Amino acid sequence: MPEEGLLSQLKRFLVGRPIPSHLAHHERLSRVTGLAILSSDALSSVAYATEEVLRVLLLAGAGALALASPISFVIAAILAIVVFSYRQTIFAYPQGGGAFLVAKENLGELPALIAAASLLIDYILTVAVSIAAGVAAVTSALPNWHVNRVELALGLVFVLMVGNLRGTKESGRIFAVPTYFFIITTLTLVGVGAWRVAAGTVLPVTPVNPLPSPGASLTLFLLLTAFSNGCTAMTGIEAVSDGVPSFKPPEARNAAATMLAMAALAITMFLGITLLAHAYQIIPSQTETVVSQLARGVFGERGIAYYLMQASTTLILVLAANTAYADFPRLASILARHGYVPRQLANQGDRLAFSNGIVGLSLFAGILLVAFGGDTHSLIPLYMIGVFVSFTASQAGMVVRWRRLRPRGWRRQALVNGFGALVTGIVLIVVAVTKAHEGAWIILILIPFNVVLFRQTRRHYARVAEQLSLKNYVPPEPRRNTVLVPIGGLHRSVIEAVSYAKSLSPDVRAVYVGMDAAATEHLKEEWPRWEPDVRLVVLDSPYRSLMEPLLEYIDRIARGHPGDYITIVLPEFVPARWWHNVFHNQRALLIKGALLFRPNIVVTSVPFHLKH
Amino acid sequence: MPEEGLLSQLKRFLVGRPIPSHLAHHERLSRVTGLAILSSDALSSVAYATEEVLRVLLLAGAGALALASPISFVIAAILAIVVFSYRQTIFAYPQGGGAFLVAKENLGELPALIAAASLLIDYILTVAVSIAAGVAAVTSALPNWHVNRVELALGLVFVLMVGNLRGTKESGRIFAVPTYFFIITTLTLVGVGAWRVAAGTVLPVTPVNPLPSPGASLTLFLLLTAFSNGCTAMTGIEAVSDGVPSFKPPEARNAAATMLAMAALAITMFLGITLLAHAYQIIPSQTETVVSQLARGVFGERGIAYYLMQASTTLILVLAANTAYADFPRLASILARHGYVPRQLANQGDRLAFSNGIVGLSLFAGILLVAFGGDTHSLIPLYMIGVFVSFTASQAGMVVRWRRLRPRGWRRQALVNGFGALVTGIVLIVVAVTKAHEGAWIILILIPFNVVLFRQTRRHYARVAEQLSLKNYVPPEPRRNTVLVPIGGLHRSVIEAVSYAKSLSPDVRAVYVGMDAAATEHLKEEWPRWEPDVRLVVLDSPYRSLMEPLLEYIDRIARGHPGDYITIVLPEFVPARWWHNVFHNQRALLIKGALLFRPNIVVTSVPFHLKH
Repeated sequence: MPEEGLLSQLKRFLVGRPIPSHLAHHERLSRVTGLAILSSDALSSVAYATEEVLRVLLLAGAGALALASPISFVIAAILAIVVFSYRQTIFAYPQGGGAFLVAKENLGELPALIAAASLLIDYILTVAVSIAAGVAAVTSALPNWHVNRVELALGLVFVLMVGNLRGTKESGRIFAVPTYFFIITTLTLVGVGAWRVAAGTVLPVTPVNPLPSPGASLTLFLLLTAFSNGCTAMTGIEAVSDGVPSFKPPEARNAAATMLAMAALAITMFLGITLLAHAYQIIPSQTETVVSQLARGVFGERGIAYYLMQASTTLILVLAANTAYADFPRLASILARHGYVPRQLANQGDRLAFSNGIVGLSLFAGILLVAFGGDTHSLIPLYMIGVFVSFTASQAGMVVRWRRLRPRGWRRQALVNGFGALVTGIVLIVVAVTKAHEGAWIILILIPFNVVLFRQTRRHYARVAEQLSLKNYVPPEPRRNTVLVPIGGLHRSVIEAVSYAKSLSPDVRAVYVGMDAAATEHLKEEWPRWEPDVRLVVLDSPYRSLMEPLLEYIDRIARGHPGDYITIVLPEFVPARWWHNVFHNQRALLIKGALLFRPNIVVTSVPFHLKH
Repeated sequence: MPEEGLLSQLKRFLVGRPIPSHLAHHERLSRVTGLAILSSDALSSVAYATEEVLRVLLLAGAGALALASPISFVIAAILAIVVFSYRQTIFAYPQGGGAFLVAKENLGELPALIAAASLLIDYILTVAVSIAAGVAAVTSALPNWHVNRVELALGLVFVLMVGNLRGTKESGRIFAVPTYFFIITTLTLVGVGAWRVAAGTVLPVTPVNPLPSPGASLTLFLLLTAFSNGCTAMTGIEAVSDGVPSFKPPEARNAAATMLAMAALAITMFLGITLLAHAYQIIPSQTETVVSQLARGVFGERGIAYYLMQASTTLILVLAANTAYADFPRLASILARHGYVPRQLANQGDRLAFSNGIVGLSLFAGILLVAFGGDTHSLIPLYMIGVFVSFTASQAGMVVRWRRLRPRGWRRQALVNGFGALVTGIVLIVVAVTKAHEGAWIILILIPFNVVLFRQTRRHYARVAEQLSLKNYVPPEPRRNTVLVPIGGLHRSVIEAVSYAKSLSPDVRAVYVGMDAAATEHLKEEWPRWEPDVRLVVLDSPYRSLMEPLLEYIDRIARGHPGDYITIVLPEFVPARWWHNVFHNQRALLIKGALLFRPNIVVTSVPFHLKH
């Protein structure tokens, strides 16, 4: 196109050129790149999971912190169970088995929509929590920046938003860097730390701004709360099973191996950090993360290794937030194809619909970050419900699937998935009970609210489809078209609109609302000189209104020729500068608004381009 | 109309039915009703003028308050001069001589635009200052409400806005009540007070929260500042000369008599309040107006007479604010007819344009009230510049007029107007110098800014008129019209859009962008069964985009038949509920946006009405 409108220029600038179909299928993933791309969400959560456990236990005094180790073993065990359960999903759904699809196929619409609603909310929280934790890693290393953490967080969300709107031309390989960087620094941290424990060279870490311990009693509720918090270590482990088709063949086998490697790494890192935190007698601080304290203890105060640890933590957390920017529009597109969200989200071809999703995701995450002061610990309670709803729905769906299809060995497989569903279901209940009062109630309201929206949307589309159906439809007979050109005088834009009108129908009438006798006389004289073939209709305006007489005249024609079309042709000024619109165009808008609900009436604007 | 759109229903609700032409000419005003309607702005300012003088003098200590009396005599003298000057304008412009028209006719465009800009800004400040002062009268009587004065002020602005949007069916007579109520209570206050002074029964008023006196030295600058503040007593005195044509014949004579009566009342009330404030040793208070203190002193603490005084003050101030709601759109309409503001403001017939003016006026006044904490004293500095710019421009214009027309006795008349212009010009300079740092600089920036906007607007319309001129214009030859109907499948809305397209041109083509081979095959089979006469064009989409292939195809046709029209007919869903729009219509909007700047291409939407 030689000329582009403002809107499409803006879109091009923000969103970039569309991707040709033949380039859209990225290179398939090897196990090594697959691990990097699909496990950043799961691995990055070890950056905050231990701390979330310790913060709760500290309420019952520093002595209670020792309980973090047994709790983390329980969590590691559950993580292993869930991973084995999801491993079966990989083989059962090599085309990609997200919680929505698995639940839809096996459990029916309602559980699937609950899972979908949970996931959409969770993608927002993945962004908010990961960014908040990433900023915490930065401000632990640079304490002066602590007061600006909300601004820092919003800045990172903005960077992610613009990056995703523009799209990345880079190969997925670039995403491998932060993940392996984090794996290396964290394993080094755990390794060196363990070696120091063995060598007996551990010195307790001096806490900065340690959190106060109110000396609450160590109740079961408190223990369960600590456990719930630790389960954040499990967020994101389903990503590999969603992304099976992006692996190189044999897809399922590669994906399964990748998932096992991810689980082994996650468990090692989570347990390592938790046990070392105990060995280094770390007390959670108001301004420094537990991982930062541990890195100081293991690597020494503020050395190069310490800063590498913090940098890698920040990077993988930002990368984890970035995964939500791919997941959110992908799920929205699946939901749109089923008619549960507006249709325009379904088409991944042109990116405009995606942009809406990306902006929406950023906006909601930004609101959460501001509302919760950019504080990871305040956001965590909201995060867990959705994660465990989708875990439970997905595995329960697998159980039903085995019972339905009954392949060889299905009992054992149903047992694995059933055990997974049971365990995650119990965690879900524990999380809901312990976290509802800390803000999770918002999610418990939002999930059913979204489900209702999904169903209403689908119902609307079903009704539309019915009204569009050609079943028993008798096409309309050919109809006459009376073309009216409302005019305010005699000038170029009028002549051009009339010229266009004459190309539409032999029955064209110019309609003039007379307000001033002299002007009307003048027009009546001049009109035939310019448009001898077009009838000039002059209407009186007792109310000094332009609209009423015009609408009455249209009514009169419509009554005289019921069923015929009436086309109103209006000249519409297209100004050279967009803000010139304040000087024009209101009339066309009013006429369109007034006639929008009338059958068989079409209002057409003929652009008249102003040069300056 | 049997059915109305949401917009027009809303408009009807807010704005009421339009006024028929033959009812638009109100009853003409007698002197008695004319005084009530046209002098509320001028008379109401005595409610705060004395206080504004005292507040400045108090900076130099309570002893300096005695200087208020000589200052108020100077102001009264200037008021008399200005009134005699405007009296001549009444006889010279019996059709109504606002500052803009007088300056335009005699001084040229620039001074006229400066006057117009000043007046538009002043109407906003009339609303803000009068409402703030009205609220101060309320909170003086009910001190508990003082903390909510901003809310009270915004509430009153909202009431005025809605009242003016709906329009008043009541006769002007109802507006006479508050003005005469205020005249009676104030003259009673002054009379009883004067009698007590004569009888020697005056007791000093006990101040509530008296303002502190920082003990500044009594400089000339401080005296001039006090004088500037007192000049608020003169705001609004030009209203009668603007409204001459609304008087009963002989219009000019009745208007002149009314203006003299108004001036006599304003001077009596202003001098009376100022002298009595001295006699009652009143010190301005943080929470109570001077008039309220004086009423307590004269009528006794919180008796019925006191409350009547406060009620009448509030009422006349609200009425004064209301006058701006008539003046603002009237001036905007005059400016629009000259092309200085958008044309749609010119038409007083349908009230929609007026509504914009009324909402704008309320919005700006509301912003000022919030920004200045609903405080009269903070708003006054902004108020005076505009008032005295228009005074000076109007009277200077009259001087030029006398020199130009030279009727009998013109020298004497020029002398009167010239003296008026000189005096108000000096006041203007004094106000600008003493008030610039207190916020008046905003106005000194806004006036030229508005003038630039006016001129740019007029230049734009002049350019448009040139482009619309039929001089040397050769009307276009009859042209062919190719009608394209982009379709996404085969359903009722498509058939109806094609049916409409067939009524426009013999050359109709349905255009389908193929994304899926099976769906395309199916459509190719089905199409001829429904539309055997309409060619189906199938376009490939290498980029999975709907838009690009369509735009390329349109380009191809446009290149093949240059000059011919191309009409794009799109089915447009009109949902049963407005919020259903989120589910539809984006495509039509995108196509329109992409083609808006292309010549000879018209995009038409055929409404398809969804029933639910």
